[in-house]
Amino acid sequence: MDLPDAETLRAWDRDDTLAAHRAAFALPEGVIYLDGNSLGPLPHATTSALQALLAQQWGTRLIRAWDEGWMAAPARIGDAIATLIGAQPGEVVAGDSTTVLLYKALAAAAALRPDRAEILTEAGSFPTDRHVAQGLADRLGLRLLAVPAAELPAALGPRTAVLLLCEVQYRTGARHDMAALTAAARAQGALTVWDLSHSAGAFPVALHQAGADFAVGCGYKFLNGGPGAPGFLFVAARHQAAAQNPIQGWIGHAAPFAFDDAYQPAPGIARFLSGTPAILGLTALETGVACVAAAGMPSLWAKSQNLFNLFAGLAARDCPELICVTPASPAARGSQIAFRHPQARDIMAALVARGVIGDFRPPDVLRFGLTPLYTSFSEVAQAVDVLRETVRLVCA
Amino acid sequence: MDLPDAETLRAWDRDDTLAAHRAAFALPEGVIYLDGNSLGPLPHATTSALQALLAQQWGTRLIRAWDEGWMAAPARIGDAIATLIGAQPGEVVAGDSTTVLLYKALAAAAALRPDRAEILTEAGSFPTDRHVAQGLADRLGLRLLAVPAAELPAALGPRTAVLLLCEVQYRTGARHDMAALTAAARAQGALTVWDLSHSAGAFPVALHQAGADFAVGCGYKFLNGGPGAPGFLFVAARHQAAAQNPIQGWIGHAAPFAFDDAYQPAPGIARFLSGTPAILGLTALETGVACVAAAGMPSLWAKSQNLFNLFAGLAARDCPELICVTPASPAARGSQIAFRHPQARDIMAALVARGVIGDFRPPDVLRFGLTPLYTSFSEVAQAVDVLRETVRLVCA
Repeated sequence: MDLPDAETLRAWDRDDTLAAHRAAFALPEGVIYLDGNSLGPLPHATTSALQALLAQQWGTRLIRAWDEGWMAAPARIGDAIATLIGAQPGEVVAGDSTTVLLYKALAAAAALRPDRAEILTEAGSFPTDRHVAQGLADRLGLRLLAVPAAELPAALGPRTAVLLLCEVQYRTGARHDMAALTAAARAQGALTVWDLSHSAGAFPVALHQAGADFAVGCGYKFLNGGPGAPGFLFVAARHQAAAQNPIQGWIGHAAPFAFDDAYQPAPGIARFLSGTPAILGLTALETGVACVAAAGMPSLWAKSQNLFNLFAGLAARDCPELICVTPASPAARGSQIAFRHPQARDIMAALVARGVIGDFRPPDVLRFGLTPLYTSFSEVAQAVDVLRETVRLVCA
Repeated sequence: MDLPDAETLRAWDRDDTLAAHRAAFALPEGVIYLDGNSLGPLPHATTSALQALLAQQWGTRLIRAWDEGWMAAPARIGDAIATLIGAQPGEVVAGDSTTVLLYKALAAAAALRPDRAEILTEAGSFPTDRHVAQGLADRLGLRLLAVPAAELPAALGPRTAVLLLCEVQYRTGARHDMAALTAAARAQGALTVWDLSHSAGAFPVALHQAGADFAVGCGYKFLNGGPGAPGFLFVAARHQAAAQNPIQGWIGHAAPFAFDDAYQPAPGIARFLSGTPAILGLTALETGVACVAAAGMPSLWAKSQNLFNLFAGLAARDCPELICVTPASPAARGSQIAFRHPQARDIMAALVARGVIGDFRPPDVLRFGLTPLYTSFSEVAQAVDVLRETVRLVCA
């Protein structure tokens, strides 16, 4: 594309139909925040929602508030997330950390393929996925096989119990073809567990259309749910009757307040709950998800592509020392842009000190989140400008 | 004891050294709250702490706040809880739901006794403990044996891998002799997992002195951490090097931000963390724990006994239809009082409608939490008065 001058950038920002959403977030002065794929910023509505939770619910209704909306929160928020990821009502529930939910999903999937010996995953994917899978494989006597992305289809076979994949690679931003890999897994009789941590709220995900079996995702990145927000779990409706929660707890019981000794799992997705729902975190997550839903995934993804093209074009011109490792094709990436440079660690430290906040990921990756809800085209241009100066400075 | 008249009650309240703590909590008008053993009330300081978290940390520092106190929160709050339960610094960590932590503790304990076939617990204890244990036992090929409290010592044997007990029975308030049962388990080579949900913040717990191996507890009851607050996990220092977290995640890794493929557990209690710490919930929990610590467990427990004696004495005189099921001896109970009555469900519903909030627990138990931080002697007398009227009304 033709690289825009300052006037054109201002025109793009003026014509940006999402520009008004920026006012919904607390964003500190003097900072260009390109780390919303690590921790989304605070929506002002979250401050109000938490104040109302304290003053009008916990502080006033006390224990009675459980029957007045709290107990329903995990499923209600799950349904809101379902609209963002191409799932049906009743297929998603919010609660627990992403790691704990990943454990539940993977254990449940593996238990549905008891005669198979292998969990297959991608080499170099996010550590917590790898750690959960290794721990579970060790306990179940399974083999964890990690291969490069290109070798995944060939590595699937009759031994494969579960294919566990992060849809978007956390360093490079490369996105798997969910439909093709899910179909390939199914053709071998294997189940899929998709980690949508860098997908949900980033682009339209099509779980149902792809035929995905299980999925989990993160609440504090593109969903703006706050530090350590509850994650979410998707279990396709067709698996819910047979799938078992490995962490059987009272809130996943069909009748929690009957206080039965015998565990009778709830009929739907609720059986994947375990302990008492974390209402503070869920309240913030619900508000963060509403911010995304208000903008709509198609608009967000359209602007994300424009932000990417602008960042990539300017960086190619102004920072030739940086090697872009994010695929150019929109269908092949998430909502971030990443570059390799031998001095990436020092560059990012200097960049953050100058108010442009991205992430360093070992060994040599500079990672920038593209978050159309609150990032303008002018900011991207300014960020690349500071990046250019910083690279020169650090490498001088 | 001699039952006090109204003037004496006022004198007791006037002389109550804990009375000033009541002002620290939001307590609605027209309610006598005897359910702090189910959900502690909102500390005003929690409202301030959450406002500061939003405005000064998440809203301003964004991702940078992880290095400015957030990452250290689980261990820091764990250390604060340790002082309430007789544990050492570095033996307790906060995070995840109580149910998830129970799963971690029980799985870790069972893995330390791989050649043993049985998990022993008390019949009729809290359902989530039972469900977690049954689920784990089924997956590990172990037998879950549940016997009445009196039969526990005799049921311990060379088959017992783990003795899992709620220290305080959630319905009756009966308390086990932790030291004796832990010693009995150890004599058989078994490990103990203690659920302190109705203990922590209720009376001084002596984990270390008792020689306990593992423990978990709840953040939202006597610790006032808010609805669905994170729970806590205790692993005795002597077990930490060998004990394994079944839910291996990146935050339990020795170097989370090295992003290594291979899981290398953190050296201490931190290996029992899994996903990203839930900062909103932890912030509220930290404040709730501080409210308890500010009063001090010895003072709280001393007043709890006086509240119990008053409630029990007045109820014996005024509500002879109710059968008290909570042991009279202080060492044999927690900080609640419970009664049986065939119409308990209707009595509690009518009582709540009249502003005295306790809990009904099936099949026939009326349960009242005794929370010295914010409950006065006059309130207990008034509650028993309303209880007397309500019993007559319901049973008329």
